[in-house]
Amino acid sequence: MIHYKEIAKIMGGLLMLLAVLMLPGIGFSFFYNSGDQQALISAALASLTVGGILFFSFSKQDQNIRKREGYLIVSLSWIFMSIFGMIPYLMMDQPLSWTDAVFETISGLTTTGATTLTDIESIPEGILFWRSMTQWIGGLGIIVLTVAIFPLLGIGGIELFVAESPGPTSDKLHPRIRETAKRLWLIYVGLTVTVIVLYFIEGMTFFDAFNHGLTTMATGGFSTKNDSMAYYTNPLIQYTAIVFMFLAGTNFTITYFGLRGKWSKVWKSDEFKAYMFTLIILSVLLAVPIYFYGQQSIEQSFRDSLFQVVSLVTTTGYITDDYTSYHSGVTLVFFMLLFLGASAGSTSGGIKFVRHLTFFKNSYLEFKRIVHPRAVIPLKINGDRVTGKIITHIMTFLLIYLMIFVFGSIVISILGYDLVTSFGAVATCLGNVGPAIGMVGPTDNFAFFDPVAKIFLSFLMLLGRLELFTILVLFTPYFWRAN
Amino acid sequence: MIHYKEIAKIMGGLLMLLAVLMLPGIGFSFFYNSGDQQALISAALASLTVGGILFFSFSKQDQNIRKREGYLIVSLSWIFMSIFGMIPYLMMDQPLSWTDAVFETISGLTTTGATTLTDIESIPEGILFWRSMTQWIGGLGIIVLTVAIFPLLGIGGIELFVAESPGPTSDKLHPRIRETAKRLWLIYVGLTVTVIVLYFIEGMTFFDAFNHGLTTMATGGFSTKNDSMAYYTNPLIQYTAIVFMFLAGTNFTITYFGLRGKWSKVWKSDEFKAYMFTLIILSVLLAVPIYFYGQQSIEQSFRDSLFQVVSLVTTTGYITDDYTSYHSGVTLVFFMLLFLGASAGSTSGGIKFVRHLTFFKNSYLEFKRIVHPRAVIPLKINGDRVTGKIITHIMTFLLIYLMIFVFGSIVISILGYDLVTSFGAVATCLGNVGPAIGMVGPTDNFAFFDPVAKIFLSFLMLLGRLELFTILVLFTPYFWRAN
Repeated sequence: MIHYKEIAKIMGGLLMLLAVLMLPGIGFSFFYNSGDQQALISAALASLTVGGILFFSFSKQDQNIRKREGYLIVSLSWIFMSIFGMIPYLMMDQPLSWTDAVFETISGLTTTGATTLTDIESIPEGILFWRSMTQWIGGLGIIVLTVAIFPLLGIGGIELFVAESPGPTSDKLHPRIRETAKRLWLIYVGLTVTVIVLYFIEGMTFFDAFNHGLTTMATGGFSTKNDSMAYYTNPLIQYTAIVFMFLAGTNFTITYFGLRGKWSKVWKSDEFKAYMFTLIILSVLLAVPIYFYGQQSIEQSFRDSLFQVVSLVTTTGYITDDYTSYHSGVTLVFFMLLFLGASAGSTSGGIKFVRHLTFFKNSYLEFKRIVHPRAVIPLKINGDRVTGKIITHIMTFLLIYLMIFVFGSIVISILGYDLVTSFGAVATCLGNVGPAIGMVGPTDNFAFFDPVAKIFLSFLMLLGRLELFTILVLFTPYFWRAN
Repeated sequence: MIHYKEIAKIMGGLLMLLAVLMLPGIGFSFFYNSGDQQALISAALASLTVGGILFFSFSKQDQNIRKREGYLIVSLSWIFMSIFGMIPYLMMDQPLSWTDAVFETISGLTTTGATTLTDIESIPEGILFWRSMTQWIGGLGIIVLTVAIFPLLGIGGIELFVAESPGPTSDKLHPRIRETAKRLWLIYVGLTVTVIVLYFIEGMTFFDAFNHGLTTMATGGFSTKNDSMAYYTNPLIQYTAIVFMFLAGTNFTITYFGLRGKWSKVWKSDEFKAYMFTLIILSVLLAVPIYFYGQQSIEQSFRDSLFQVVSLVTTTGYITDDYTSYHSGVTLVFFMLLFLGASAGSTSGGIKFVRHLTFFKNSYLEFKRIVHPRAVIPLKINGDRVTGKIITHIMTFLLIYLMIFVFGSIVISILGYDLVTSFGAVATCLGNVGPAIGMVGPTDNFAFFDPVAKIFLSFLMLLGRLELFTILVLFTPYFWRAN
């Protein structure tokens, strides 16, 4: 039995929160007198009204949220937020079509950053701010999920790698988790404020600094400029973005340890080390062809390489450089970055390093197991033994992820797009990155896709953001049959 | 300690056998007076001499072959056969470059069927027959491997699914296995003779029938015609090819049961059912766009669809129709077929259905496990429970396979080929299929690749043919360190 009343009450609370988060956008709207006041106020009122009705119609139940409700709540949260979050796009002066509005909103809330807007700078400031805010909300949401909900639900097999999580043993939300979650939100908010201030000092307008700060820490990648981060030629701004994208892609618990000076704990994380060294190695390697083909200074070649690598691996998706303009081998390597993802417990999407690490380490051990079939050879990550169940779960995740990529690409290509564009669009949406290759390269946008493709790609963004299983389990009979 | 003398003796025996198998080619060479007598006789003599020296220099040891020698023997067998098998290509009137000769020989012995020949019909008959024979030898070899050697070595995780295999418990070659292997060879030879006779009756010349018979049962796909099977417009020939490709892609133990009328045993095989129904469903589905775009009769549309699906899934690679000429969605689906592979214990290459089946069934159960985290939910295939160790091993295989595909594609694209061609060439070589997409589509060949790409692709063919682990394990320290 699923407690729908409880779920409705939570959705109500969420919508009221959403209405509150629309307020800054309304503020900018009035400040700039950008003509979108009505659209934003209507959205906030609709969200507040429906939220209030849902919240106050149902009295607080005594029951705690159970596991099965958890999946529904997570999936429904993103869907409810999308429905009310898209209202401003539909009500502005030159409204988006409803499929574009769905795509833009889900791209925001999933922190993907793919856009259907062909001229971002023509969008009124209020709406533009709300667009950035959807990413920040999505990033906030995902921190709650990875810290408090996913471990409980056993989603994605990474529960044991997200530090201080309770593991899937308890069936009730543990109160200590709320404390952890709060602490991580504080880091999220603190880092966001810091990067906004830095961007402002380094020369962005306050409005642009605020927007880019929100979308940097969310690893979202929405920009207020048509040229994305390439607009800002000040290297300091780009280096600042690199540092904060890196932090946003780091497990927030690791950042917490780092901020408190507990470096031994930071260094104990195999995922953090793999994440950091991969970024460094890839940036150095890719700087070579960029220097060779791009006719730029060494510093700028390295900066462009580092920026794009960090931007794609953290699934942010800011652009300073067209990485598809060099050589097909370079393009392919950048395409493969769409499958990395940064760290579990960060705001980044995609597969994430802990899963790659589990696969690589376990594969290596598999050869040892072949040579010594009778020996028990355990896998260790962060010094802890990883159970066979988790290994199976993670490899299943990886394979399902790739399968969805394959079937998704088939769907898009059947709709009439070339193979490279199909691969690119699906990989970047599923991985919540933003830019890709082919007709959705770094200087392109998603406007040309037909409505069916846009809805399908939006679904893939949700699927990727919620670690596949959260949504897919709803389509199995087990879920609805279980007690 | 590795018993190199024992290994050398086996290589010697193998090379003498190779010399014997060169005799029919020499026969055709004299019959047609095709001018390649000297090339073939030299190759046979070289093979016989070196083989004889290796074989008779070392007295028969008392030791049985152990597991570790097994990996070396398997890998070295293909390498030794390749070295001596390429001699005819190097010594004929208009010799191939040595990289082309390596590619052509390994493509033959691995039953891949990709070719560097731009005008097959200009090649002298003797060499052409030897070319087909290399595939038949490769097919024969792989039956021995899957029945007698792989189960012992624990390669690929499919040991438990190849019926009557001893499992990885014993460390010595079981004598009963030799009996099983012999029985399966007899089926292989019997079916080869049958299909040759049928091709001949249906209108091929004896020479063409013999060649195509060999390459059909090996799921190899080398043809004596530039147009491959499209040259034969008689539908009967094409249907015959379809039936025998299907049989060649069936587990030979299942075929044995079928021939003895034990249908319940055939039907108990989940892999066989999945293989058969997948072929039927894909053929029907793909016939629709072929009918729609191809402007052909319904019968021919279905036949073209069925032929290409069976040809690619069994990793044969014969062509009757350019499947890349319809629509990008159709092209992509055909590209995906390169990743299927037919059955374990057949001559087909690639991933194979038992692995896909294990992944799909286990993924479905994984959702059940998420909803019921405390329940023990076992995976069953063919009615038998599959251990967690095998599941892990198979998923590792799948992921390593895809990883090699990705890194292989990066290598080829860095060498300067476009993305689609890189994906296609790597997928078809790793899967031992033959044709692909892009510049290596069904009507193209591999001649244009530069030497480095050809050697790299040859290595991928070997890697795929020997189920990855056999070769990869030789690159780990575990192998050389073990006692």
